[in-house]
Amino acid sequence: MCGIFGIYRHPEAAKLAVYGLYALQHRGQESAGVASSDGDVLHLAKGMGLVSEVFGGRDLDDLPGDCSIGHVRYSTSGSSYLANAGPILAATQHGEVALGHNGNLVNCCDLREELEGGGAIFSTTTDSEVILHLFARSTQADPVDALVESLKRLQGAFSLVVLLRDALVGVRDPWGFRPLVLGDLEGSPVLASETCALDLLNARYIREIAPGEVIIMDREGIRSLFPFPKVQPVPCIFEYVYFARPDSDLFGRVVFPIRQAMGRILAKEHPVEADMVVPVPDSGLPAAMGYSEQSGIPLVWGLIRNHYVGRTFIAPRQSMRDVSVRLKLNAVPALLKGKRVVLVDDSLVRGTTSRKIVRLVRDAGAAEVHLRLSSPPIVNSCVYGIDTPERSELLAANMDLEAITAFVEADSVGYLSVEGMHAAAETDLGRACHACFGGPYPVQYTQLRERQRHLFEKDHR
Amino acid sequence: MCGIFGIYRHPEAAKLAVYGLYALQHRGQESAGVASSDGDVLHLAKGMGLVSEVFGGRDLDDLPGDCSIGHVRYSTSGSSYLANAGPILAATQHGEVALGHNGNLVNCCDLREELEGGGAIFSTTTDSEVILHLFARSTQADPVDALVESLKRLQGAFSLVVLLRDALVGVRDPWGFRPLVLGDLEGSPVLASETCALDLLNARYIREIAPGEVIIMDREGIRSLFPFPKVQPVPCIFEYVYFARPDSDLFGRVVFPIRQAMGRILAKEHPVEADMVVPVPDSGLPAAMGYSEQSGIPLVWGLIRNHYVGRTFIAPRQSMRDVSVRLKLNAVPALLKGKRVVLVDDSLVRGTTSRKIVRLVRDAGAAEVHLRLSSPPIVNSCVYGIDTPERSELLAANMDLEAITAFVEADSVGYLSVEGMHAAAETDLGRACHACFGGPYPVQYTQLRERQRHLFEKDHR
Amino acid sequence: MCGIFGIYRHPEAAKLAVYGLYALQHRGQESAGVASSDGDVLHLAKGMGLVSEVFGGRDLDDLPGDCSIGHVRYSTSGSSYLANAGPILAATQHGEVALGHNGNLVNCCDLREELEGGGAIFSTTTDSEVILHLFARSTQADPVDALVESLKRLQGAFSLVVLLRDALVGVRDPWGFRPLVLGDLEGSPVLASETCALDLLNARYIREIAPGEVIIMDREGIRSLFPFPKVQPVPCIFEYVYFARPDSDLFGRVVFPIRQAMGRILAKEHPVEADMVVPVPDSGLPAAMGYSEQSGIPLVWGLIRNHYVGRTFIAPRQSMRDVSVRLKLNAVPALLKGKRVVLVDDSLVRGTTSRKIVRLVRDAGAAEVHLRLSSPPIVNSCVYGIDTPERSELLAANMDLEAITAFVEADSVGYLSVEGMHAAAETDLGRACHACFGGPYPVQYTQLRERQRHLFEKDHR
Amino acid sequence: MCGIFGIYRHPEAAKLAVYGLYALQHRGQESAGVASSDGDVLHLAKGMGLVSEVFGGRDLDDLPGDCSIGHVRYSTSGSSYLANAGPILAATQHGEVALGHNGNLVNCCDLREELEGGGAIFSTTTDSEVILHLFARSTQADPVDALVESLKRLQGAFSLVVLLRDALVGVRDPWGFRPLVLGDLEGSPVLASETCALDLLNARYIREIAPGEVIIMDREGIRSLFPFPKVQPVPCIFEYVYFARPDSDLFGRVVFPIRQAMGRILAKEHPVEADMVVPVPDSGLPAAMGYSEQSGIPLVWGLIRNHYVGRTFIAPRQSMRDVSVRLKLNAVPALLKGKRVVLVDDSLVRGTTSRKIVRLVRDAGAAEVHLRLSSPPIVNSCVYGIDTPERSELLAANMDLEAITAFVEADSVGYLSVEGMHAAAETDLGRACHACFGGPYPVQYTQLRERQRHLFEKDHR
Repeated sequence: MCGIFGIYRHPEAAKLAVYGLYALQHRGQESAGVASSDGDVLHLAKGMGLVSEVFGGRDLDDLPGDCSIGHVRYSTSGSSYLANAGPILAATQHGEVALGHNGNLVNCCDLREELEGGGAIFSTTTDSEVILHLFARSTQADPVDALVESLKRLQGAFSLVVLLRDALVGVRDPWGFRPLVLGDLEGSPVLASETCALDLLNARYIREIAPGEVIIMDREGIRSLFPFPKVQPVPCIFEYVYFARPDSDLFGRVVFPIRQAMGRILAKEHPVEADMVVPVPDSGLPAAMGYSEQSGIPLVWGLIRNHYVGRTFIAPRQSMRDVSVRLKLNAVPALLKGKRVVLVDDSLVRGTTSRKIVRLVRDAGAAEVHLRLSSPPIVNSCVYGIDTPERSELLAANMDLEAITAFVEADSVGYLSVEGMHAAAETDLGRACHACFGGPYPVQYTQLRERQRHLFEKDHR
Repeated sequence: MCGIFGIYRHPEAAKLAVYGLYALQHRGQESAGVASSDGDVLHLAKGMGLVSEVFGGRDLDDLPGDCSIGHVRYSTSGSSYLANAGPILAATQHGEVALGHNGNLVNCCDLREELEGGGAIFSTTTDSEVILHLFARSTQADPVDALVESLKRLQGAFSLVVLLRDALVGVRDPWGFRPLVLGDLEGSPVLASETCALDLLNARYIREIAPGEVIIMDREGIRSLFPFPKVQPVPCIFEYVYFARPDSDLFGRVVFPIRQAMGRILAKEHPVEADMVVPVPDSGLPAAMGYSEQSGIPLVWGLIRNHYVGRTFIAPRQSMRDVSVRLKLNAVPALLKGKRVVLVDDSLVRGTTSRKIVRLVRDAGAAEVHLRLSSPPIVNSCVYGIDTPERSELLAANMDLEAITAFVEADSVGYLSVEGMHAAAETDLGRACHACFGGPYPVQYTQLRERQRHLFEKDHR
Repeated sequence: MCGIFGIYRHPEAAKLAVYGLYALQHRGQESAGVASSDGDVLHLAKGMGLVSEVFGGRDLDDLPGDCSIGHVRYSTSGSSYLANAGPILAATQHGEVALGHNGNLVNCCDLREELEGGGAIFSTTTDSEVILHLFARSTQADPVDALVESLKRLQGAFSLVVLLRDALVGVRDPWGFRPLVLGDLEGSPVLASETCALDLLNARYIREIAPGEVIIMDREGIRSLFPFPKVQPVPCIFEYVYFARPDSDLFGRVVFPIRQAMGRILAKEHPVEADMVVPVPDSGLPAAMGYSEQSGIPLVWGLIRNHYVGRTFIAPRQSMRDVSVRLKLNAVPALLKGKRVVLVDDSLVRGTTSRKIVRLVRDAGAAEVHLRLSSPPIVNSCVYGIDTPERSELLAANMDLEAITAFVEADSVGYLSVEGMHAAAETDLGRACHACFGGPYPVQYTQLRERQRHLFEKDHR
Repeated sequence: MCGIFGIYRHPEAAKLAVYGLYALQHRGQESAGVASSDGDVLHLAKGMGLVSEVFGGRDLDDLPGDCSIGHVRYSTSGSSYLANAGPILAATQHGEVALGHNGNLVNCCDLREELEGGGAIFSTTTDSEVILHLFARSTQADPVDALVESLKRLQGAFSLVVLLRDALVGVRDPWGFRPLVLGDLEGSPVLASETCALDLLNARYIREIAPGEVIIMDREGIRSLFPFPKVQPVPCIFEYVYFARPDSDLFGRVVFPIRQAMGRILAKEHPVEADMVVPVPDSGLPAAMGYSEQSGIPLVWGLIRNHYVGRTFIAPRQSMRDVSVRLKLNAVPALLKGKRVVLVDDSLVRGTTSRKIVRLVRDAGAAEVHLRLSSPPIVNSCVYGIDTPERSELLAANMDLEAITAFVEADSVGYLSVEGMHAAAETDLGRACHACFGGPYPVQYTQLRERQRHLFEKDHR
């Protein structure tokens, strides 16, 4: 779960990267970084925290040059330290290089083992560092050729922005798991994970980078290579379900109306007699609108989100049940008392949060609570870059519907069907990765080594 | 613009005050403070910033005792320094006292001049300090009697929480401008500006404190006095329009459906042929829902809010027009292109932000933009505690509708009528203060002295 | 324990106050503040911490005007909060006033009680606030007259800098307990606690402010009043012994050579056969030099101070004895092994630190450790502004020399006599306050009320 | 300029490393770091700033294990970023390894070029990373053998602490440029750059690590290897002159008395008629004591150092000449007026600071200022780890004595002779590196590549 950005030959390259990352903040809140090239030397600034925490108030004079890339990152706590934050920068025989990566390589551990055996040292646990080692070891004379050679070794999900001294390269893996789009800001080409970053800059959207495309921007202009063997593209449908921003134009279509359509189909598949449809804000809103439209049951704002998040408070010792969820959401008793409620959320992972929300709604006086999810049961863990927990923690992988209903303490639970999801997304079963929803894994993977998981679990401040 | 909270005899009084303030954060983001009494000594902790910035991660061991009050504050930048943050605490001949105040005294300057003439020194520019001086100078033997005596001198808006060594007192001025409610948490009485603070604590809502009521909680229990001459209560209708949280039960009714009703009446008063209703998030949402329901024009999420706010970025030097509004809102080109849009917001003050939003929607390709406001034209400045700008800066006080429409660059502008507003709120013209919308000022006021405004415009860090 | 500074009519008044405070940092490390007047309005900036922490890197644009005062403060932890930091600023009927105070009023509690009885409110526990109240209540028409009237009520130690809208006033109590000097920087008069502040600014030293003098700088020039009844001046001899900076010219003489002379007399009074004289750095150095000169025993740098102080480390659980003193001082085994050591320090208060240092020297291999103190036994607590502990904690007030020697684990202990101290300082017994060394208290005092001590022991952040 | 520390098998390994680094703070103030091993995984925490800033108040739970190394670092600003801070940690085929380095490799660039040519990537510009690459590429099966093999490639100065999963290794290059000592804390072996770190921990000093020694501590005990060809050891004499802490036992002798002896010989070599000897605190003190002893001219504390350093203040615009030096040092007019002063400092590099100090003394009224330096003219830049500037910036490399005297504005300047320096240190001309004082460079070096200098001059935060 990361967001990436790049811009080539714009006098305010670093500043625009910061703005771009700000629009991509939903893709990663753990760290933020920008690298720039002044045509001779590469520069890097990164830090833990939100884009505004890392770059707010800074004039970016330490990031000179007219070419830049940016990266926001989310990761599990174990490897949450500064060295792992992107972009990653290194000096090599091909010159300096910086790289921002969205996705997950499934052959990363094999490559790492091979590289270590060849005498490589690793300072991070990122996939990105593996790619830099392959690049550094390539015997190709031209840096771009060396990069292309190293890309061919990669298996899995990789949308990349790569900054060289005098070139910016965008890469999307042949399966096209993660998005990457091309825009234009007054003649300067822009790369971004999602179109919402283009919108913020008032840049024009040109097109998606195609699955398997390597797009090179240098003094000679823009050109594209397709160095990978041809495979069936399988963009990640979970981007539509939850991850992408609702205002982005993703894989060719705007996300919000797709989520609304998921809600409409959900209403057809799992109707219920009720007094009101209540969205779980903010992610459940589009589907709740769709459910309400289709069912004719009025949409009521019975849960209000408090957006003043921040450092955690010390919880009272007494029994203030579900305080963590209460800090974020308020169920409005005056609206919910005695009502039969259809509660609409986008998905259900471990079920613990959903249970707290169901309780909140019931504590506020709801007579019935019917949980409706605008995606199918999540039964597998993602290995291509979405941070789903282990299978053992996935509720739907371990319980049937009745048990799930009991677990979340709802009166009924209804999931969107896989078919319904694809219908709403206007994809079809073979043309989008839905491995987490029980579909096939498009690229084989080896288990992540325990070694990798534990190696660097420390505070590299 | 402030939020207040108090709790009497609960073992975790300070912690609950912090939680309560967190729910009231929308009423003031500039500073936050909590005072507690351990039955002998009063304790105080306050700071500039959000509740989570001031109290996040703190264990509050420095705020012992089973009785506490809390205060969040917003104010204009001039007097934005720590000494002015609430609660204000002082030692007096009646013992220590701490006070949190929501509202604005209209005779504050006269009282201050009188007090200075009598040898008082002022460390802040707050109304609260004036009240403490009156309390300290009272010759009544009993602290509560001294407090009541001092309250009788006050004119204007004042909802108060007052902490004494062994008592908590809640006060609402006889006009009832600002809200104040009573709740119960497992036997401990709770005071709060709005019910959403009770909801977060899972406290039971009992009733509003009545206009003119002084409620005293001490070792003898809870009792109420009504020491003020009887006047017609005039609660502030702007709380319904914009200020209160949509999930609060205010003056006896939940806010969200009232705003929805405002939108429905607005649709009747100012219909327009259009393809979609687009809310200005978050405040314009309920009225947009109402407008859509009434008009049958579909609600479309054409503006998306970025909730990752934070420290300001240095803006690019180049012409990135309206960057401040772009950082908060994204207009979705794929949804808006070629469409006729009804843009619904709650109110229009200076008009500069509305103009930027209209431009944003038009830049995203909208064919027409019809601005609809779910409140009447704001033509007067508030003197009872809402931070409206000077009359000279209020757009509707200085332009007719045609000029306003040109100024905000909309195709048309429609305001809810005063009558429509009252109908939605189920108040009537004489029973709510709508001075800002051209109604009478219920309490006479003297001009704020220039002296007060400029006296303390400095950084008391 | 405080340091004060003032400058009148200099274009960089606030900046010079910061520099002056930096030179006076040894007089108070808890908080630092500067107030300035632009001729119309007073401005204030203050904070907890060192001068460099509060003002480092700031451009001071928020402190405009050509007249300023500054204050550094030390206090016991109980009342260590921002509201108490100086200068204290208030608005009164005589206009705004800011005040910096060095010393301690012995009738502060009586005055405070009287003022509270008259309806005053107190926001701090400082003596300064009492003075401001007296000033505010004066019925004199002219602010300077009002100030002088209020000063006449004060008993005890008070060197003051007072900033009015268009005047700077310096005050030294009639006993002259605390220092205050006048200098000149290119025509602008400067007030400072010690001459080292003048030296840093390259200002010319003119003279001490006389005991009982009130010096007024305003548009009419500089003039002095002597409004107090004439008493025998009794400057504090402990300033010579420990508190003042060694390079200051204090009460007419430079401190370093006086401390050296104390060491010489100490060597005559308490000779001992030894191999080396070792100073306890930094305060014991001058006396150790004198002791070495007089005795002919070589000075050896057997204790080295680590100047990289900072936030406290978490101590190892294991028995790393006296770790707090080891972090500051290192006893050099290679120099001390087998040696008979005369350890020279300036004074002995509780004895716990001295014991740790004696142990350190012995752990490093010293054969004998003879402790010599360049001041007499401290047997009384100071009530005039030096932060000595309660009498019950003063070692010499509770033990005879034999017990003291045992307590600090030395082979012998020798104190400078009162007569020797006065001889070195060239003062005589009646002409300097040495109450802490068993002399008379020059000004009667009432006990500090428990009330005052406990009232505000809280974190006013 | 760095300090290193290591401890093997102590339950509080990380905490003791922090304490050890605190004692070594004078060797590097830019960054501080500690790595620990729990027998399975290595842990790392580091940060920019002083030890107390990085580790103060931390409980170090994130550094578990009973074996640790620590590192403090100073470097020129260009490469002053966190990635370069020590220790450096990496994962390799030989397992994880962390390394702290004091000294400078003269063949670092050659090795780096060779390694890059072989496909290595570099994340830092440190010598340490070069060593880790050599280690990672070694084909030796045993990690210690691999380490030893890589050490043989190194030319120049390297005192190292190396942490493996289950071993701690100390290394001193065969020339013995930089110090490294062995101590014992209750049975746990300790390595440190200087004995002052042992003193702080109350550890027993055992011996120096010998030039060319590799000392290995693992489950089998302690053993030493001597894998390097035998060369003449040449410890750095500048450690005696300035760099080492005066209380350390260095290369077998305590530093303070050596510096005192330098002052005595200096007095013989460059006598002058004068009224007082004034040390430049703190570094000039020991030599000033020696000069005074030898010459009979009294030592006077005419310059006082202000130890409250901190963030820089914004300098007044007006002509406050030499404000940076005034903030650190005060020349006492009352002591210096009309006097003939011998000003003693340890060395003279660029001469700009000395000139400011001479001016300061003269501004305070000194009649004559005779500058005496307790080391010879510095005429060459160090390539073995002391941060001397380029030859072009060294005053004595570019001017004769007369010009130097004029430049620093002194009445006379006298340098200690090379012979005098060696006599004081009891070394002889062939047995200590004094390349900076015009002696031979004991190890050949290639010029540092411009590439290395500029490559990473950026802010890797």
